[in-house]
Amino acid sequence: MWIVPEAKIADLMDRATCFTAIEGVFAAMSRGDAYNFPVIRESIGHADALYGFKSGFDRQGLALGLKSGGYWPGNEAKGLTNHQSTVVLFDADTGKVKALVGGNLLTALRTAAASSVSIRHLAREDAKVLGMVGAGHQSAFQMRAAVEQRQFEKVVGWNFHPEMLDRLANTAQELGLPFEAVSLDELGAQSDVIITITSSFDPILSAAQIKPGTHIACMGTDTKGKQEVGADLVARATVFTDEVAQAISIGECQHAVADGLLDKADIAELGAVINGTHTGRSSAEEVTLFDGTGVGLQDLAVAAAVVDLAIAKGVAIEVDF
Amino acid sequence: MWIVPEAKIADLMDRATCFTAIEGVFAAMSRGDAYNFPVIRESIGHADALYGFKSGFDRQGLALGLKSGGYWPGNEAKGLTNHQSTVVLFDADTGKVKALVGGNLLTALRTAAASSVSIRHLAREDAKVLGMVGAGHQSAFQMRAAVEQRQFEKVVGWNFHPEMLDRLANTAQELGLPFEAVSLDELGAQSDVIITITSSFDPILSAAQIKPGTHIACMGTDTKGKQEVGADLVARATVFTDEVAQAISIGECQHAVADGLLDKADIAELGAVINGTHTGRSSAEEVTLFDGTGVGLQDLAVAAAVVDLAIAKGVAIEVDF
Repeated sequence: MWIVPEAKIADLMDRATCFTAIEGVFAAMSRGDAYNFPVIRESIGHADALYGFKSGFDRQGLALGLKSGGYWPGNEAKGLTNHQSTVVLFDADTGKVKALVGGNLLTALRTAAASSVSIRHLAREDAKVLGMVGAGHQSAFQMRAAVEQRQFEKVVGWNFHPEMLDRLANTAQELGLPFEAVSLDELGAQSDVIITITSSFDPILSAAQIKPGTHIACMGTDTKGKQEVGADLVARATVFTDEVAQAISIGECQHAVADGLLDKADIAELGAVINGTHTGRSSAEEVTLFDGTGVGLQDLAVAAAVVDLAIAKGVAIEVDF
Repeated sequence: MWIVPEAKIADLMDRATCFTAIEGVFAAMSRGDAYNFPVIRESIGHADALYGFKSGFDRQGLALGLKSGGYWPGNEAKGLTNHQSTVVLFDADTGKVKALVGGNLLTALRTAAASSVSIRHLAREDAKVLGMVGAGHQSAFQMRAAVEQRQFEKVVGWNFHPEMLDRLANTAQELGLPFEAVSLDELGAQSDVIITITSSFDPILSAAQIKPGTHIACMGTDTKGKQEVGADLVARATVFTDEVAQAISIGECQHAVADGLLDKADIAELGAVINGTHTGRSSAEEVTLFDGTGVGLQDLAVAAAVVDLAIAKGVAIEVDF
């Protein structure tokens, strides 16, 4: 079996490989070639930790396995990342363990790749202004992946804690783009593409703040109760997601569905757009919304790709298991 | 992190260590100090494989993690074991991966330890004859662990395919005990302790075949539809199990409960007997039955023990992960 330690991922993985892996697995899910198993998520009653697994099988790519990990709020004080993830891949032909892969950086990269795939397939071609809601650790990954999809000329940003906006400003500078800290009204009025990447439990943006033609990628909601945008905005948009079942239970769609403003049948898979079985954006005025809930198959796809890279570059550690 | 390959387990693990680990975790479960997470079990639609996870957390022993694996029926033709298992342990204080452990032999050992724990705590002290129903791979492990608990003088056995009874005869010989292949009526009439370890979907033994005072450990039923003994026998016995929820859904108890012959409230945890909160056997004539369904915490307990042994003996492979 192969081991790819966390510390090796940064030098191995690039955004293009992540993008291809995520686009491919969304397409496979929509064709019925790949599916996620039920998610396990437990509050373990120790160290205030949330722990669990996301898992699945891609029949076409033969990626089988799980991402295990969770959230340990006391880690930061120990010099560790609060979110801890490890991916385990199995040989689909024999069930033997195939690889163990550090999953911390991969999780950030695959989440950013998901919104990037949604921008490629759903945003207006002439999008110029990128709006960022949220300035936490993940926001920089999101911005870097997003700007590769359109000829953005400017980034505008808002965060609940304004003192964190430096991260957005610095990332925009690194990408050669001007950055402006704005109000939420301004953000909605200027942005052609908006990414929300927060851990909010209350809606931050409403339908009235968004201009026609906007594409919104809601990337922060992954738990019952979390919410980044108003149900009215979800109801106004044409809604796409990675996995419908997850979107209506723990994703951004949960509130609009509960309020009777959105029917499950009206939520499309992003993979259907990639496969060409859904037309995607139908007009320049349409508001499109991608509810990125995060599925185990994304983790398996990027981990499988990084194992291939690590073997090819001689970086993977081989263990006779 | 530490790696303990499958090939190292046989030299590291012994039955006494397994017994202590399993007895301890059953006790912890019953005290509410350890609990299993929901089981994932999927027919993946590739290689006819069944794949999934059993997982849990022992707050006292701080064992956190999962056993992943499944059943690949085509493996034998490739010179591999059809059942493939791998245990992944995590640090309960940080969520970082702690150890990867080969789980094939451990699964056989922990399953045998479970029936052995039930015999220690539930069988009559004067038990002399051990009855074995089933002669597959697991039966030898079961017999070896069982005979350590009482002064058995003889083993009797039955198998659906009589040509496989050699395994039981050879194992009994290895243990210095006479072996007799018998009919099911004879097996019931002679045995003080019976272990069923089959993959049967139909009852093999009924209440009328069992003599008073017998202890039966039903170890084969781990799936909806499987059944080793008649619901009438389960109804007649005082019933114990590793985990009640699993016993009534996928264990031997499923049929008696479905038929209205057994109430969930009348099933006791074996851990309660170990802890002394249940008296266990109440008379020499009582028939006791242990429904061993197999839980993730057993896998974590034996894997954690083997990691400690492997580190102490310098056999564990350390990887900077």
